Amino acid sequence: MALKLKELDKNADILIVGLGLIGGSYAKALTKQGYKVRAITRKQSDIDYAIENGFLYSGQTEVTKEAIEKADLIVLALYPHILLEWIKDYSKYFSSGTLITDVTGIKGSVVEKVQAIIPENTEFIAAHPMAGRESSGVEYSDDSVFQKANYIIVPTEKNTAEAIKICEQLGEKLGFYRISSLDIETHDRMIAFLSQLTHCIAVSLMCTNNMPGLEVYTGDSFRDLTRIAKINEEMWTELFLWNKEALLREMDSFNKEFLHLRQALIDNDAEEMKRMMRLSTERRTKFDKPTSKSGIIYENDERKDG
Amino acid sequence: MALKLKELDKNADILIVGLGLIGGSYAKALTKQGYKVRAITRKQSDIDYAIENGFLYSGQTEVTKEAIEKADLIVLALYPHILLEWIKDYSKYFSSGTLITDVTGIKGSVVEKVQAIIPENTEFIAAHPMAGRESSGVEYSDDSVFQKANYIIVPTEKNTAEAIKICEQLGEKLGFYRISSLDIETHDRMIAFLSQLTHCIAVSLMCTNNMPGLEVYTGDSFRDLTRIAKINEEMWTELFLWNKEALLREMDSFNKEFLHLRQALIDNDAEEMKRMMRLSTERRTKFDKPTSKSGIIYENDERKDG
Repeated sequence: MALKLKELDKNADILIVGLGLIGGSYAKALTKQGYKVRAITRKQSDIDYAIENGFLYSGQTEVTKEAIEKADLIVLALYPHILLEWIKDYSKYFSSGTLITDVTGIKGSVVEKVQAIIPENTEFIAAHPMAGRESSGVEYSDDSVFQKANYIIVPTEKNTAEAIKICEQLGEKLGFYRISSLDIETHDRMIAFLSQLTHCIAVSLMCTNNMPGLEVYTGDSFRDLTRIAKINEEMWTELFLWNKEALLREMDSFNKEFLHLRQALIDNDAEEMKRMMRLSTERRTKFDKPTSKSGIIYENDERKDG
Repeated sequence: MALKLKELDKNADILIVGLGLIGGSYAKALTKQGYKVRAITRKQSDIDYAIENGFLYSGQTEVTKEAIEKADLIVLALYPHILLEWIKDYSKYFSSGTLITDVTGIKGSVVEKVQAIIPENTEFIAAHPMAGRESSGVEYSDDSVFQKANYIIVPTEKNTAEAIKICEQLGEKLGFYRISSLDIETHDRMIAFLSQLTHCIAVSLMCTNNMPGLEVYTGDSFRDLTRIAKINEEMWTELFLWNKEALLREMDSFNKEFLHLRQALIDNDAEEMKRMMRLSTERRTKFDKPTSKSGIIYENDERKDG
C-alpha cells in the first residue's frame, strides 16, 4: 500500500480526534508550524475555544465520512477504551492511504487490535508522547511540555518504513527533544516502571497521612513526590488495568526494595542503608534532565551514531 | 538570664559552626543583609572560598575560647552526632547570654540533650530550615532556596520568649517564606512523613530497576520522584536512625496504602482505585507552592490572625 503522505509537508490534512489536553497541545504545536489542523471532538465549546485562540483551523462534533476520508493523517487522542470503540465504529470511513496514529500511554492491549480492525489499505502506527500535565482539558493544552520530552514510536511488523518516517516527522514538528522507538512489550514494561509505578506511589503517599497542617510544613521533596498525585482518575485507572501484569511486577519489585530498606533500619544496619543510598545516587545521576535543546536525538535507529 | 542580643541588629556577632551547604547558605543570606558573619569549620579551603566569594567576614579551623565567647549568636550547622560531640567539648566556652541555635533535621534525640549540657546562663533554641539541595559542600550553598521554604522553630519549656523572638528574626533575615513553630514530637513526626519517608521511597524506587536505557525514556514524573534519590548517605542514614520509631510508623502507613492499591488492581476494583485517586487529588491540591512572596507568614503564634 502507499500512504497519501510522502512527507509531513504543510499541505498535509491533519485531523485530531479528541481535543483534550494532549490533542489540544498537538493542535497548538502543529498550528505554530504552519499546518491547518482540523478536529473532531465531543464538545463544541472545546472547538470554539481552540479556534478563538488561534490553534485550530476547523472542527466538528459529528463524526462524518466526509471529515474522515479527506484526512491524510489522523491522530487519535482518546482514552484507550474509547479509541478501540472509535476504531470499530468509524475506521470504515478511512480512505486509502490514510495514516493513523495515537497518543495512548499503553500499547499491548491496543495496537494489535487496532491494526487488525482497520481497512487493509490504511496504516496505524502507535506513538506515545511522554508529556502531560496534572490538569485535563483543552484549556490546559501547552505544547511547551514537549520540548524536553520523549516521543516514543512503537512500530510492529505491520508498519512500513514510510509510516515510521512520517511519524518521526510528526515528533519533530511537535518539538520533542528525543525521538525513539520501542517494541510493544518493552514499551509497556518501561512505562509500568517509569510512569505507572510512580503514579501508584504518589497516590499511596498522598493517602497515607492527613495530619492537619502538613501543607504548612512541607518542603520540596514531598511536593516533588506528589506533584502527579493530582491525577485524572478515569484515565489512570484505565491505564493501570490495561497494563496490569507489567505494573504488578514493578509494584512488587519496588515493594521488595522498600521493605529491604525498612528492615535495614529496624536492624540499625547503617552500612546497608548507605549502600542503597550510594546505588541510588549513582543511578539517579544518569537521569539529569537535558539543560538545553541541542537538536533532536534519535535513539534505536541508524541515525543514533550520526 | 538575659541574652546579649535584644534584637538581631547589624552589630550582632554571628558565628556559624560548620560551613557546609546550609552553613554557607546562612552566611550568604546574612552577609547580604549586612551582617559580619564569622565561621569555624574544619577545612581552611572552605573558609577561603567563602571569603573570596564575599559571603564570610572571617573564619578559622581551630575551635578557640576567644572565637566562641565573643559570639552573640552561634549557629551549629553540623550533623546531629557531631553537634552533640561539639556541645560536649566546647559549650564550656559559651559566654553568659549567648544564644545558640541549630539546623538539624530531627529534634527528639538532640534538643533536650543539648539543653541539659550547656551552661546555665546560655540558651539553646532549636530550629529547622526546611530547605536543601541534592549536593553538599559550601560551594553549592545558595540562600535562594530559603525563599519559598519553611523555617520551623522548635521551642521547649526551657526557652524564653526573647530567644524565640531572636530566632524568628533570624528566620526573617534568612529570607524564609514561612516561619512557624512546633513541639519536638510533632516536628519529628511531621519530618518522618514529609521528608524522611519521601527519601526512603526515592531511594527504594531508584534501587528497584536498572533496565538499560531507562534514562532515555523517562518522563517528568520519574524525575520528580527521584530528584532526592541523589542523597548524602552519611547524613540521611544518621537522620533515619535518630528518628527510627517515627519513620518506621510512617513507612508502615505508606506500605499499607500501597498494598491496598495493589490489591485493588489485582481485584480489577476500578472504583476503589478511583476513590484513592480522588482522595489523593483532593489532598494534593492544598500543597501547591506559593507562587509569589507576599510577606512572611507566621504560623502557630498570635500574629497568624494579623
